[in-house]
Amino acid sequence: MTTALRNRQILYAHRPTGTLTADAFEVADAAVPSLQEGEVLCRTILLSIDAANRAWMQGRTYRDELHEGEVMAGFAICEVIDERDTGIPVGSLVTAEAGWQEYSVQPARGVNVMPVLGPLTHHMSVLGITGLTAYFGLLRVGRPRTGETVLVSAAAGATGNVVGQLARLKGARAVGITGSDTKNAFLIDELGFDAAVNYRSPAFGDDLRRACPDGVDVYFDNVGGPTLERALRMMNMGGRIACCGAVSQYDTSDPAAGGGIHGVPGLVVTKRLRMEGFIVIDFAADWPEAVQQLVGWIASSDIKVVEDVVDGLDRAPEALIGLLAGDNVGKRMVRVGPDPES
Amino acid sequence: MTTALRNRQILYAHRPTGTLTADAFEVADAAVPSLQEGEVLCRTILLSIDAANRAWMQGRTYRDELHEGEVMAGFAICEVIDERDTGIPVGSLVTAEAGWQEYSVQPARGVNVMPVLGPLTHHMSVLGITGLTAYFGLLRVGRPRTGETVLVSAAAGATGNVVGQLARLKGARAVGITGSDTKNAFLIDELGFDAAVNYRSPAFGDDLRRACPDGVDVYFDNVGGPTLERALRMMNMGGRIACCGAVSQYDTSDPAAGGGIHGVPGLVVTKRLRMEGFIVIDFAADWPEAVQQLVGWIASSDIKVVEDVVDGLDRAPEALIGLLAGDNVGKRMVRVGPDPES
Repeated sequence: MTTALRNRQILYAHRPTGTLTADAFEVADAAVPSLQEGEVLCRTILLSIDAANRAWMQGRTYRDELHEGEVMAGFAICEVIDERDTGIPVGSLVTAEAGWQEYSVQPARGVNVMPVLGPLTHHMSVLGITGLTAYFGLLRVGRPRTGETVLVSAAAGATGNVVGQLARLKGARAVGITGSDTKNAFLIDELGFDAAVNYRSPAFGDDLRRACPDGVDVYFDNVGGPTLERALRMMNMGGRIACCGAVSQYDTSDPAAGGGIHGVPGLVVTKRLRMEGFIVIDFAADWPEAVQQLVGWIASSDIKVVEDVVDGLDRAPEALIGLLAGDNVGKRMVRVGPDPES
Repeated sequence: MTTALRNRQILYAHRPTGTLTADAFEVADAAVPSLQEGEVLCRTILLSIDAANRAWMQGRTYRDELHEGEVMAGFAICEVIDERDTGIPVGSLVTAEAGWQEYSVQPARGVNVMPVLGPLTHHMSVLGITGLTAYFGLLRVGRPRTGETVLVSAAAGATGNVVGQLARLKGARAVGITGSDTKNAFLIDELGFDAAVNYRSPAFGDDLRRACPDGVDVYFDNVGGPTLERALRMMNMGGRIACCGAVSQYDTSDPAAGGGIHGVPGLVVTKRLRMEGFIVIDFAADWPEAVQQLVGWIASSDIKVVEDVVDGLDRAPEALIGLLAGDNVGKRMVRVGPDPES
C-alpha cells in the first residue's frame, strides 16, 4: 500500500572501491508507503553528514551493514506529519535514522521526540551528537584544569571546534590542529583558539612545539596515527588523552589495522599518561544536563555555533565527499526541507 | 681518610654491547672511607636485583648514568653500623642506593629508616617496591571487580605474582602469562592463579583465549609489545590496562622506540578502554597504609611471599644475568650479609 505522496531518495547504489565518488549513489523517486499501526510518517528537515556514513558503506561497523540498492543511511531531524496509534502527536520534532530521503516511515520506537531548545540546526551541531561528544570527551575524560594546554586534532570539525571553545571556557589554553591555514585563522580569529597548527606544513613539528611551549596536558584525539604519536611525545606528566571515535573509529573497517603507535606503553608509563576511549552514548543519562549548559553558553556567546549547511537533498553526496576531503568547517548537514511553520 | 675495614665491591667495568655477560663486571677490594659529619656507614644486608640495573648501564634513564669503573648501582637494605652527627641511631635498618658492595658511606638524607614489620626479605619483596607496584597498579589503576578477569604478564616475576594473588583476593579471575610451563604450574598450584599461559608456545593465542573465556577486564602490562597488542584485542568493553614501568620503562633507552602498537586508538575507542601509566613513587603518601594491608594478608596466608634469594655478593652479576633471561620466580635479591642479631 502506498500513498500519493512522492518521495525523492538517494540510494546507496554501488560499493566504492577507493575514494568515495558520486557514482556510488543514485537518485530515485518512490511512493511513500501507507502507515501501519504503530508507525509515524516523518518529513526530513536536516540530514547529518558524518564520516561514519562512509564507513557504513564498507560494512563491519557497529551499525548493520548497508546493502547496495538501499536508501543511503543517515541520521536526521524530522517532523512527524502523520501517525497511526503511536501516541506521538503530529507536528512533533524527532530525531531518527531517516536516511537520505524526503520522507520515511518509522516504527514509533525508532524515533525520539526532541525538546526544542534552540534553532533546529543547533540540535544537529553543538546540542547534537558532535557537540555532546566534545562536551563529555573534554570535560569528563580529558578534564582540563585552568592554565593547562588542551590540544585537539580535526579542530575545525564539528566536534573539534567545540572542544577548543570549551577548553577556553574552562580557563585552558586551546591549540588546534587542522590541514588548512584558512581554517586555522578562523579558529584563532573567530573562536578564540590560542594557536592552531597545519599538519600539512613541512614545519609541523616545530610549529606544534612553538604553539605548545608548556607541553600538552590534554590531547583530544580525533585522528589517531602519526598525529597521536606526535602528541604522545609532547604530553606533560600526568597528561590525559581522550580518544574520540569521530574519525579513527568510523573511518576504518578494522579498528586494529593501520600503522602501529610508537611510544605505547613506554611514554604512557614514564609520563603517567591516561589514554581513555569513550563514546558519547555512554553518557546518555547526562545529556539533558549537558544540553542545558551548552544552551546557556551559546546564549552568553561563550560558545559560537559553527555550522556548514548544504542546501538540498540532491547535494548530499557531494556534501559527504567534501566532508571526507576535509572541506567542512563546523558541523556539516544537508537541509532537506524547511523548518516547520511556527 | 680510610678505615681499617675492607670493602668488597663489584664494579661496573665495561659497557656491555649486547646481552649482558659477566665480563661487564669486576671484583674490587677497597678500604672503607672515614665518616664525615652528617654521614652514616651502612652494612649491606640484601641487594635488590632488577631489570632496571641493566638499563642503568646504557645511560639515559630517569637515573644518573652509570660510568665505567664505578661501583655497580643497586638498591639495598642495610644496617647502620656507624654515624656522625646524623641523629640516625647505630643499629637502624635503612633502605639506600648502597650499590654492589659490602659497605657504603651515605649522607644521612640518602637513607630511609625502615619500620621493620616482617622478615627483612619481605621488605625487599611484597612489602617493597615491587609488591607496592602490584598493589597500587592493580588496586588503584586497574581496579578489578568481583568476577572480572585480570590478566598479568611477567606473572611469575616480583610484581606479577603479587598482582595475580591480589586479583584473586579481590574476587577476580587471575590469569598469568610467563615464558615457562614450570612457572605456570607454580602459579596455578602454589599461588592460586586460575590459569597461566606460556607466550613461547606456538598455540599461545588459542591458549590465551581458552584461559580467558570471558575476555579480559584488567590487563596489568609488564612487557608492552606484541603481548600488549594481543591483550588489546581480548579486552572487554570498559576494560583497563595498567601500564607498569617494571620492564617496558627500564629496559629501553628510548621509551618511544620499539615496534608500534596496533589497535591504538581504534580498539581503545570502540571498547572504551582506559590505558594508564603509573609509577609507584606517585603513591608514596599511601605506602604505609598499603604495607599494613599487605602485612595482614601475608599473616592470613592470603598472599604467599615468593622470593628468590641468591647468596653472596660475588653472585650478583649472575643473579642479574639470570633475571634478564627470565630465570627468577618471585623477587630476586642477593644476600650480602646476615640479618642483624636481634
